[in-house]
Amino acid sequence: MDPSRALNYARAHRPRFISELKKFLSFPSVSSQPEHAEDIRKCAAWLAQHLRGIGLERVSIIPTRGNPIVYGSWLRAAGRPTLIIYGHYDVIPGEPLRSWRTPPFRPTLKNGNLHARGAADDKGQLFCHVKALESWLRTGRSLPVNVKCIFEGEEEIGSPHLTSFIGRNRRALHADAAVISDTRMLAPDRPAISYAQRGGLRAEVKVTGPRHELHSGNFGGAVLNPVQALCEMIARLHDGHGRVTIPGFYDDVREWSDKERAFMACAGPTNEDILRDAQVEHGWGEPGFSLYERTTIRPALTLNGMAGGHYGRGSKSIIAASAIAKIGFRLVPDQDPQKIAKLFSDYVVRITPAAVRAAVRTYAPIQPALVDRNHPALKAAAFAYKKGFGFSPVFIRSGGSIPVVNTFQKILGSPAVLMGFGLPDDQIHGPNEKFNLTNFDKAIATSIWYLAAAAKLRGERPVLKEMEWRTS
Amino acid sequence: MDPSRALNYARAHRPRFISELKKFLSFPSVSSQPEHAEDIRKCAAWLAQHLRGIGLERVSIIPTRGNPIVYGSWLRAAGRPTLIIYGHYDVIPGEPLRSWRTPPFRPTLKNGNLHARGAADDKGQLFCHVKALESWLRTGRSLPVNVKCIFEGEEEIGSPHLTSFIGRNRRALHADAAVISDTRMLAPDRPAISYAQRGGLRAEVKVTGPRHELHSGNFGGAVLNPVQALCEMIARLHDGHGRVTIPGFYDDVREWSDKERAFMACAGPTNEDILRDAQVEHGWGEPGFSLYERTTIRPALTLNGMAGGHYGRGSKSIIAASAIAKIGFRLVPDQDPQKIAKLFSDYVVRITPAAVRAAVRTYAPIQPALVDRNHPALKAAAFAYKKGFGFSPVFIRSGGSIPVVNTFQKILGSPAVLMGFGLPDDQIHGPNEKFNLTNFDKAIATSIWYLAAAAKLRGERPVLKEMEWRTS
Repeated sequence: MDPSRALNYARAHRPRFISELKKFLSFPSVSSQPEHAEDIRKCAAWLAQHLRGIGLERVSIIPTRGNPIVYGSWLRAAGRPTLIIYGHYDVIPGEPLRSWRTPPFRPTLKNGNLHARGAADDKGQLFCHVKALESWLRTGRSLPVNVKCIFEGEEEIGSPHLTSFIGRNRRALHADAAVISDTRMLAPDRPAISYAQRGGLRAEVKVTGPRHELHSGNFGGAVLNPVQALCEMIARLHDGHGRVTIPGFYDDVREWSDKERAFMACAGPTNEDILRDAQVEHGWGEPGFSLYERTTIRPALTLNGMAGGHYGRGSKSIIAASAIAKIGFRLVPDQDPQKIAKLFSDYVVRITPAAVRAAVRTYAPIQPALVDRNHPALKAAAFAYKKGFGFSPVFIRSGGSIPVVNTFQKILGSPAVLMGFGLPDDQIHGPNEKFNLTNFDKAIATSIWYLAAAAKLRGERPVLKEMEWRTS
Repeated sequence: MDPSRALNYARAHRPRFISELKKFLSFPSVSSQPEHAEDIRKCAAWLAQHLRGIGLERVSIIPTRGNPIVYGSWLRAAGRPTLIIYGHYDVIPGEPLRSWRTPPFRPTLKNGNLHARGAADDKGQLFCHVKALESWLRTGRSLPVNVKCIFEGEEEIGSPHLTSFIGRNRRALHADAAVISDTRMLAPDRPAISYAQRGGLRAEVKVTGPRHELHSGNFGGAVLNPVQALCEMIARLHDGHGRVTIPGFYDDVREWSDKERAFMACAGPTNEDILRDAQVEHGWGEPGFSLYERTTIRPALTLNGMAGGHYGRGSKSIIAASAIAKIGFRLVPDQDPQKIAKLFSDYVVRITPAAVRAAVRTYAPIQPALVDRNHPALKAAAFAYKKGFGFSPVFIRSGGSIPVVNTFQKILGSPAVLMGFGLPDDQIHGPNEKFNLTNFDKAIATSIWYLAAAAKLRGERPVLKEMEWRTS
């Protein structure tokens, strides 16, 4: 299992790898906007064709009730362990476009970075594994382990169809570990393996008042304004210290031992690191916890956006008819997204003034997830990082939410190996998102090493004959 | 001064009058959006050409630093009083377009109403006077009084250039009264003369936090969200009872005698009237005052609109970089807009959390205005209403703000005669704005009668020779 030839191949083909990634990034595969359905389809088709090209087998575009899953496998390493490699080819919208220096779907190289929406989250990271597989397959016609690639198209909308697909196909998807690269390192010389993910829940609150806009001269002072009402309701979601005020919200939040918190303080980013990454001067939030703890072992309620009335150019003297807020929860063990949805809806009803009406919709629940950081699959990852980056990784918790982490662990019993290749300043979900190409190179090397290291995991006999996919 | 021939002329030419008004309404003369500058220019040119066509003299399009004033006069009634007829040809934006049943700038007749942006506010009302002047001039080649028409293009943005224009041309604009039709009646059988107008002030608050959008998973709970911060700041602008909480805000608000409040209760709309007009079930606002009082003798702070983060389709897990709120104040005697601007800015600074920055801009100050309801010019208006509508008008206060009312009174010493021809359900500033065509007919008749009645005012010798306009 000497990876030298694969590593040499990757180095030799770097320019082509980058131009292929640019092509992959040029698809506006935005999962949250229906007008991009065709772009999603084209992106999935391109990816499937690419997997066929590098030598994966049983490549297919598996339909779901939403966006398709791109699947490919190589299961000829009899007696060896099996890895799932998971990634997502969907992205969030490119807006606000005016904040981008280059168009989000015209990938642009600049100062060793490749700028595009999805460059780091997650097309770029996913592609590192694809190129590692290619490097093994093109140099030795085989892989050190069995591999099942699952690249989904709905991660950014909470993977609404993936869990049921995995549940229906648990035998076919059996694996010893699931590798996911959709997180980040702490710095170029500080690789990181994430052993915890926050869960999530999304909510929309729409407040309606008058049937139509009213003249604010004629009615200002006598009719409750739904935009103002919504602001006042939002103001009641946190107390003055940044704690969420929804009754019962913290009831199921797990308390961590001093030992675990000491480990976190040692391994994780400092307050200064986090403020620098965010490029803000002041921290905020729940007293008694570091910024790292606030974003990992503590839940959060974020107002992702809100709008009502006239907010564009010019002015309009109106009382608006309605206002909308979009809210994202980040949840931690042992919070249950469904229970939080109920607590939130009940609280909104309670704080809605009588003179307006509020409608609440909650969706995209994601369970929080934890991985045993002493599992051999994670130790193999640490070895691979040391080889690929020259530094041993730290074990950290992530504030984000990858829906499938919990699914892999609960349904398949496979530990999730969260090998992040992004950097803190990649501006994922922001304008000018980028992926650093030095990290791209090192990540491919790390993945090549990981495929070799994983061969030593105590694996079961792989399921060589996959069944027909059960998709509904 | 028998108006019979003028009245007959108006009846005979009704269809043409309506089609001319439709043409006038088809210009998207939106003053608050720079992209409509050319529409403003075209609308002013059309109006000026029209005034020439009906026989007005010295018609000109007077440039200002903003949108032009359309002027026309007829000053051949030697020894008779002089009236200013004021109106505005600019409108607020047509948005939100999806709420309109017919496009805002494609005037549409339906059930005796003409639907278009500006149909009632103010092109339709202004046009009643133009058609009354035409009816006199085309039947007798003269008017009963001297007339100076001032039709401005910036009322909806607070008339930023009109006051200085009037100040510089006070001799040329001398008049015994200024007629303004930019208000409304209480019902089709309840004409109304407004003897009070609220003043106004506009403000924009922009709150900025992180330099760019942040991922709400990575940073949610540790970085203050500017959209949430702005909501919390807005929530601090009113107390739980609907009173404005800006320190000093009510200091200069004039208290009215029981007698005046009893007159208001008798003459003005009831709470039920106002709730029905607004099509809402519940009133709101300052305790101890009727809804009519809250919208006339009490000031108000209205959040006209607010936006930040992602509020469109789909979802984005972000902490936004900034948020904006647009606020409109309605002020009453003896509040001073400049002083309120200072109080507001100071308060915003005080309530801005340390972790974000706020920028406040205040603009478009309008002084509150009061007219002596026993002035002969108002009594003449009451007579004209009785003739035109068959009902004597009530004297009411308006909640809106017409910047020029105070200017006419303070600079020219001319009382403002606020003869409203709109109806409560005209939806001015809302979608599907309309002007009732029966009111259009009766308003033209009322204006014809008013021109006759005004001849009996004790007038001074008119300034027959107007000077060159001083425009800067």
